[in-house]
Order: sequence, then structure tokens, then C-alpha cells
Amino acid sequence: MTSGLSPAAISSRKARMDAVRGRMSALGVDALLLSLGADLPWLTGYEAMPLERLTVLVLTVDGHAVLIVPELEAPRVPDAGDLFELSPWSELEDPVAIACGVLGPHLRGRVGISDRAWATSLLAFQSRMGDASWLPASKVTSQLRALKDSTEIACLRAASASADRVARALQAGDVELLGRSESEVSGDISARLIGEGHERVNFAIVGSGPNGASPHHDAGSRVIGRGDVVVCDFGGVFALPGDVGYCSDITRVVAVGEPSDPDVLKCYEILRLAQQAGVDAVASGASAESVDVAARRVIDDAGFGDRFIHRTGHGIGIEEHEDPYIVKGNETVLEAGHCFSVEPGIYLSGRFGLRLEDIVAVTDSGVESLNTADHSIAILEV
Amino acid sequence: MTSGLSPAAISSRKARMDAVRGRMSALGVDALLLSLGADLPWLTGYEAMPLERLTVLVLTVDGHAVLIVPELEAPRVPDAGDLFELSPWSELEDPVAIACGVLGPHLRGRVGISDRAWATSLLAFQSRMGDASWLPASKVTSQLRALKDSTEIACLRAASASADRVARALQAGDVELLGRSESEVSGDISARLIGEGHERVNFAIVGSGPNGASPHHDAGSRVIGRGDVVVCDFGGVFALPGDVGYCSDITRVVAVGEPSDPDVLKCYEILRLAQQAGVDAVASGASAESVDVAARRVIDDAGFGDRFIHRTGHGIGIEEHEDPYIVKGNETVLEAGHCFSVEPGIYLSGRFGLRLEDIVAVTDSGVESLNTADHSIAILEV
Repeated sequence: MTSGLSPAAISSRKARMDAVRGRMSALGVDALLLSLGADLPWLTGYEAMPLERLTVLVLTVDGHAVLIVPELEAPRVPDAGDLFELSPWSELEDPVAIACGVLGPHLRGRVGISDRAWATSLLAFQSRMGDASWLPASKVTSQLRALKDSTEIACLRAASASADRVARALQAGDVELLGRSESEVSGDISARLIGEGHERVNFAIVGSGPNGASPHHDAGSRVIGRGDVVVCDFGGVFALPGDVGYCSDITRVVAVGEPSDPDVLKCYEILRLAQQAGVDAVASGASAESVDVAARRVIDDAGFGDRFIHRTGHGIGIEEHEDPYIVKGNETVLEAGHCFSVEPGIYLSGRFGLRLEDIVAVTDSGVESLNTADHSIAILEV
Repeated sequence: MTSGLSPAAISSRKARMDAVRGRMSALGVDALLLSLGADLPWLTGYEAMPLERLTVLVLTVDGHAVLIVPELEAPRVPDAGDLFELSPWSELEDPVAIACGVLGPHLRGRVGISDRAWATSLLAFQSRMGDASWLPASKVTSQLRALKDSTEIACLRAASASADRVARALQAGDVELLGRSESEVSGDISARLIGEGHERVNFAIVGSGPNGASPHHDAGSRVIGRGDVVVCDFGGVFALPGDVGYCSDITRVVAVGEPSDPDVLKCYEILRLAQQAGVDAVASGASAESVDVAARRVIDDAGFGDRFIHRTGHGIGIEEHEDPYIVKGNETVLEAGHCFSVEPGIYLSGRFGLRLEDIVAVTDSGVESLNTADHSIAILEV
């Protein structure tokens, strides 16, 4: 990224900054302090390192955009023309004091801070800005970030295609499962994601047999046996040349020979229909919660409603989970450019779990599934 | 981790909780809210997922220890006897309200929150706890966590040994460099860390030629050529069976044939002596800053002081950077059990960079270097 943003990337980011300032103005927000999380790379092309030295973009409603970075990380910041001013701080300086200097009169204003900034950063600012009032920066940025432009969708599409290639290898039996531990398989999936072009792995859940009933199971020491059903849910960060990375996230289920539990195939068919019903409900003008309702109804009607213990999906972009959330109570009206997961699950404690997940993008004419790996449960020959 | 903590692990964690409550009492802190970061796994064996659903341990000075977790993640929490109470929240409940219920009278007290908790979590608590006063939890926990017990040092030693094996492969020329991009090499190093037992890679910096002069350089598209000097700084998370993971962090320099810049070898020898001087200054009773002074003096005396643009080191444990920081102004007195990096560097902008890093542990009798890979610059035959 140190080679610099392209003129097109600078221009689209200037438009984003203008849109952010427009919403700041509408919401009465004087300044944003953007540190960890997606707002900063979305606006500047630069991602803060998740370490104790503070990186923060001070963006004021009336025109300042100053990126305060540790001196030793300054060479990482891409050249972005006049998009922002760069202000490196050396090891013995205080970056909070520098940021307060940029804020000037806004020290007493209404200030947004990155949702994922560390609490300790917020406390440091609060101790110097006793008269400020605070809000999460997402109140300003999240609606804007949720609507992806064509460049962002292209990156999400490429990320999903890369994850699909790993999913297909799993479904084809190219990833050895029988007799290996979940964590070995997880390591293999991670290596394949990197091999398929991901720059970073966010997670590689491998839940085998009864462990599949734990939706966020950590791949562990359990050795995968004959007849096991294995939930594989993995994703990472994938970048197209010259831009920041976007996330992939996919779940497929493979069985090591005929499933030993007689209810697996029946439940999987319910799940497959539920996931399809969710995707079919996606349309510009539909609400986010209606997608949840559509998927959930299929599982409810089959009598497994209490075994689908999470929302149907989450938005995805630079962050692995972001708006819009596909959950009861979210009345957000879907528009072309919204990208999110559709991932119902059925979890039978002590027996097995099943989940099927694709990333989809809302289009003018309906929906595009960015993942295209086969939706069947893959029954491997062993 | 879902199999449960061993009796020894539960017992050592009870002792840690007692020590934490002792310091809370001494500092007048009523409660801690522990979410992301190392405090939670250090006290409970459970690490919060870095996602938007809140996980928080409410630890009060007068005896409550309630771990509030998303229902779908509850199966991940290890069985830890009566160490803490588990309180799962379902998708449509409000975890902040649940935590406030546990806090009870401490809602108006002095409350510490994990340094790395998301700002948005702190804002959510602050909006319900208008009379509370806040501090970073590290004010309570950091000094305690910085002193590693023998189990923790064993894990750091194993993590370093694993990273050493990757470093030796680099030094032996087993990792192809010539003609490959930095990011390919970085991917290779990452895969080797996993292959050598790491459960996660935190970073794999590959800075070749002039890119080495950027200490936190992102491995990029630059293709490594003959005569290049390559700074490789990598680490991740390594766990011993049945416990949480600890971090590795090592830097070694390899040259692809004779270095093309005539000053590389002279500068490297200065660096090697500086790193050794830093390690030699480590002793129980010495100050953290004295280690920085010792390493820096060698580089200063050689006339490169202004090219050593960062502190000499950082503590390491469950977090990759934690107390004690080896930096001017840190008068912390080192004790047996303190573990940290000693990693001076010399950076010549536009030409090359050099850094040499080991993790060391303070012992009763002096210092143990947990990394043992050769300290020379490795000049590969090409």
C-alpha cells in the first residue's frame, strides 16, 4: 500500500469524506476520531495497526483531516495526495495532545470515535476533553459504508471466489479429514486461503461431530472420525492490487462417509431450503429483518426453530461483521450495494450442527450470490 | 479449550483473581469489566471473540465474577469449576443491561474496563452509568500480568522455540527469497509458523532492500533481488495443551548474496553489539529504561543514534505488546518473571534497515534468552 493510492481511489475517497462531512453536519457532529476499524481505511486507504501506539485521523466538520501516526509506521501510509495531512509522532511525544491541538474549538464539541478504538484511547481523550460529548463514529459512517460501490463489490466478489476455491477443495475431498484433528484441518484451510490469495485469515472454524453444535467452535484436538459431519466456516481478508482488503466468509458442511446420525440429511435439507428462502427474500426495498423471517420460517415450520440460535446474517466489507445485520428488529430497507451473509443454522446439542452460508449483494434487479460453491452437503468417500 | 481447565489452572487463576481483588481494594476500584484483550483469558482461560457481540466478565471487589457471553459462544467457554458464573445472553437480549444488573451498587463506583474493549462498549456502559468514574483495567492488572509464572514462561519458551525453527529455516536458505515478492515470502513464513505449532500468526513483516527501513513495513509486491538485505520480523500465538496461547516475536536479517550496500555489514555489527548490550543490561533490580539506554548507547556512539527511531522493546505474554515497555522514562524495576523483547534497529531511509530481536525472561540469576537462533546476518548463497 505504500506505493500510493490511484487517482481514482483518491477521488472516490474525497467523495466519501464529503458524504461523511454531510452526515456530520446533519447530525450535529463536530469531529470524528478514527482509529482501529474500517472507517479509517475506507476514508484514507490506511489501516491502523492494532497495537498500543495510537493512530488516529482527526476529521473535523469544517475541513481538517489530519492522520496522526507513530513515526515508525509513517512509511506505511500510502501517498494520497491532499486527501489528508500526515502528522507522525515520535516515541516520546503524546499523540492525544497532538490530536487535541488539531481539534481546537471542537474540544468541547460533539465527537465521534471509531467503534473499535480501544477503550483506553477513549478514556485518554475523555480525560482531556471534559466538556465534549461522545458517540460511536458508526452513527455517522455505518450507513454510508454499508452501501458498497462497484470497486468494493468487485473486491468482495474476488474474496468470495477465493474462499469458494477452498470450499470446493473441501467438497472434493482434497483436504484430508479422516483421522486428523480439527485444528490440523483448520491450519490446512488457513494455508489454502493464503494460497488462494487471501492476505490474512480471520478464522477457520472446524466443528466436527457434536462440536458442530457450537456455532463459534474453536477448532480443537478432536480427531475426525468416520460418519462425522464437519461444519467448516472460514474467511479472511482479500485485497485487489492497490486497495485495502475486504472480507470473505463462507460455511459449508462435509460428511466423512455416510453420516452416523440418522437425522443429518433430513435436517440439512431443511437448512438448504431455509438458506435459499433467505436469499430469495433479498431485494431492493425489502427490510433486513424480512430476510431473517423468511429463512427462520422454514426452520420453524420444520420444528427446529429453537435450534436456530442466532440471527440469519451480518453485513460484510472491510470488517467481517458490519451493518446491515439480518436480524429481527432491523427495519433497514435494503438497497443495491448492501452486502451481507445469509447463514441459517441448526444445532442439536451433543449430536451435530449444520450451517450454510453465502455472501450476497443486493442489486438493482434482485440479488447476486458472491459465493457459488455447491450447496449440497458433501459426502466424502472413505 | 472447551474441555475445561485443569485443577492446577483453576487454582492458579483463583490466586490471580485474589491478587486482582487485592489491588482493586488498594486502588479503590469497585469493579472491572473485562472484555477484549489479555486480562480475561489470564483470569478465566477464555478469550472473547473480537466481534460485535459483547463478552464481558463483571468482577466486583466484593466477590462477583460473572462471565456474560453471547449464547452462541457459550459452548466455547471452558469448564472452570466455581471460578466464575456463566451468564449467556440470547440474540435479542441486551448484555449491557445484564452487566449493570450484576454491578448493582457499583453502578456508581469506580470501574475499570479492559484497555482493548471497544470504545463503543465503553460508551454503552457510560450511557447507563452516569455517576461512575472510569479507568483502564490495566491500572489494576498490568503489573500483575507482567510477572509471568513458570507455566507462562514455559509457554513463551515453547512459542519462541517454534519461531526459532522458522528463523533457522530462513537462515539456512530453506525459504526461497530471490525473485519472490515480499508478500509471497511473508505467506511462506506464516505457513511455517502454523506448521511449527502456532495457532495464529500475528504478523510476518518482510522488508526487503529500502523497505527494510520502514520498521512496521507491510510485506508487499516488491520482488526480492540479488544483494538485498531482508528484515524478517514475525510472530504469532502458541498454546501449550489445555491453556491459552502466548505470543512469539522474533526478528532476523538475511542477505540475498553479498549485500549490495557497502555499509550493511558495518551497521549490522553495531546492531548486534547493541542488542547484546541490551540483553547484558537485563537483571533483576535494573530499571526497564536502563536496558534501552544500554542498547541505545552502542548505536549512539557509532553515530547512528538518530536512525534508531523506536524504543528498545516491549513486554510480551498473552498480548504481543504489554508491560513492561523498554523505553526511556519507564522506571519499572525488573524482577524475575518479566518477559520482553530486546530489539534495537538501524534504519537508513532509501537504502536498507536492520533489526535484531529476541524475547528474554528476567531470572533470579540474570536473564534467559528465549530465542536462540543465530545472531549473525545470514548471507545466503545465490
